[in-house]
Parts: sequence; structure tokens; C-alpha cells
Amino acid sequence: MLLYDSPVSGNCYKVRLLLAHLGIPYERRTMDVVDRSNRPEVLGGLNPALRVPTLVLDDGRPLAESGAILWYLGEGSRFVPDDSYERAQVLQWMFFEQYDHEPAIAVARFWLAYSGRAEDFADRLPERKAAGQRALAAMDDHLNGRNYLVGDRLTLADLALYAYTHVAHEGGFDLAPYPAVGDWLERVASEPGHVPIDA
Amino acid sequence: MLLYDSPVSGNCYKVRLLLAHLGIPYERRTMDVVDRSNRPEVLGGLNPALRVPTLVLDDGRPLAESGAILWYLGEGSRFVPDDSYERAQVLQWMFFEQYDHEPAIAVARFWLAYSGRAEDFADRLPERKAAGQRALAAMDDHLNGRNYLVGDRLTLADLALYAYTHVAHEGGFDLAPYPAVGDWLERVASEPGHVPIDA
Repeated sequence: MLLYDSPVSGNCYKVRLLLAHLGIPYERRTMDVVDRSNRPEVLGGLNPALRVPTLVLDDGRPLAESGAILWYLGEGSRFVPDDSYERAQVLQWMFFEQYDHEPAIAVARFWLAYSGRAEDFADRLPERKAAGQRALAAMDDHLNGRNYLVGDRLTLADLALYAYTHVAHEGGFDLAPYPAVGDWLERVASEPGHVPIDA
Repeated sequence: MLLYDSPVSGNCYKVRLLLAHLGIPYERRTMDVVDRSNRPEVLGGLNPALRVPTLVLDDGRPLAESGAILWYLGEGSRFVPDDSYERAQVLQWMFFEQYDHEPAIAVARFWLAYSGRAEDFADRLPERKAAGQRALAAMDDHLNGRNYLVGDRLTLADLALYAYTHVAHEGGFDLAPYPAVGDWLERVASEPGHVPIDA
């Protein structure tokens, strides 16, 4: 399999983290996340949104959207529960990540740490900071008294939300007010098979 | 089942449309989408994001996020393919909808048609218009020569993207440049079991 990838993208890291846990070999092709001028040429026909990650299966079929790629690779493994309600809960947290968490925390992180022009986004940062804090508070409430987001073990939901939460400080987020999130981050990172974002 | 609902929300309409197709009876409880002051009281403990739709199963277990609710209700039905790659493609389009399409088209529609203070958002509208046009163009490219988004029949992907696409004009979007989208909207609306957003 070929993964169109970015080393700094949490969306790509989710996929690499699952592939590492599953022990699946793959090839990486790095795409620039600032200069996106070659994306129509490289990702056209593979991903309607021209984003990374994009996975190309061994038979050439493409798959886009980190959540859909996680689901494709994870179905039938220990990372997707057998129970239909728990499966839906996993997807609930994955959709929460893409709608509430990523557009706040990943975008603030990109603006501040990777865009090269943080000052251009300064007036829009407070809104994203507030949204990110709401997302972290929702996670903290839920994780209080729980070891994992869904059920009693690591699922795709944890991998999906770990990706940008563990680098939220690069977006200016202080995790100290969210102790259950902090404990959960350590728990996810200590799982056998875990790899860091820069592996 | 009890659906915390809004008659104007496309995210809620997706769920009502699937429930109608499946012939599943349910109760609706309407929430205000402008005055959200009662949401912590009503939806606290049911939905970490305090949004509608929120579904409460007959045994009291809650489920949030329209995509997760669609998946829970749709698994095992004709709206979720048996093939694992096609299932992942359905999720790809559902994540595309929540990340690229809804934050542009649904938000522009809310600002213009439902917020009661469209002028407050005027300076931010052009960015959402451009993003919505990119999402519609991506759909149009994909639907050109296809009857449905995934495979050869109606799936959750079509229901999820129909919801806000068919009311995109309320957000100021002209669908004339996207003829394959227009044909597909008619095809989805002509399916047996279809119900309109104001049913």
C-alpha cells in the first residue's frame, strides 16, 4: 500500500499509528502541507478533497479521509468493537474529532507552528482557541473515570483523538486543566505497538 | 427511540430521512438552533458536543453525531454495502460531508437564512462560499457518469450529502454549474420512501 503522507499531519499520523499497531507494511510519499500547488496533479482522481492522508491499495484503488482509512484498515481487528452500539460510539468520537476537535486544535497548531505566517491568522486564533478548549473539556468530562473513549480498551476512537491532542501544545493549548485527558494520553502512548508522530 | 431534533437542521434531516426509508418509528423533540441556552440541561450527558441530532435508544443509551447515528441505524440494511472497500467509501463521503461540505454550505445557509443576523457574518461569507463551491465541484466531478456516490445504489453517503446540498440555495449557492449534482438530487428525491426536510 502507498500512503500519501505528511510527517507533521496528525490526520496522517492516525493512519501510520494504526498501520504500526497492525504490523502492516506500506510505502510513504511525503506531500508538502504549505505549498499545495502539486496536489491536483498528484492527488487528482485519488481524493476529491486533494488532502493527505490518501491511501492507495495494492490493486490501485484509492481511499480518502483519515476516518474512512482507519475504518477500512481497522474493521475486523481489535480496534473496532464487535458490538454495534460500541462501533457507533467509535464513529461518534471520530466524527467529533473531525468536526469539533481538528478544525480548532489542528488548525491553530498549523497556523502557529507550521504555516510560516502565524501573524496572518492572529485575529482568528481566539475563536479556534475557545473551540479547542470546549473540545478538550468534552473529552475530559467523558474520560473522567474511564480508561478509553469507548468500552474498556483501545479503539480507533482513541487513535483518532490522540493524534492532535498529544501535540495540542503546539497550537498553544495548555492541557493542565484536563487531567483525565493527560492520563489518557499517557495510557495510549504506553500501549504495545505505539509509535510517535516522528517515527 | 427519541430524536432530539431541529426541523431546519440538515444533520437532523439525514437521520429522519434514513428512519423514514427504514420504516422505524420514533419520537421527535425539537431543539432551538438559535437560542441554545437550554442545551447543557437537556443534552448534557447525552452528547459531548451538545448538538442535534442526538438519538436516545429505547434502553436509554444515547448516540451523537449524525454520521454515527446513520451508521448505527444503517448497518445491516441496504444503505450500507457488504463490501469492505465500499463501506469505507461510504464513510469517506460522510467524513467529506462533515469536514468540507457542511462547515461551508450548512454554515452559510444558517448565517443567511436562519441566524436572524446575517449582516454579522457578511465578512466571513466569501470564504465559506468558496469552500462550498469547491465541495460541490468535487461532488460534481465524482457524480459525472455515476448514479450514486458509492457503487450502483443509494447508500448512507447519498443521504448524508443530499441533506444540505438540496437546500444549498438557501446559503446562496447556485447549483447550475454542477449538473451531475442536480441530476443526482432528483434521483435521490425520487427514491421510494423519500421524505422532504419539512415532513
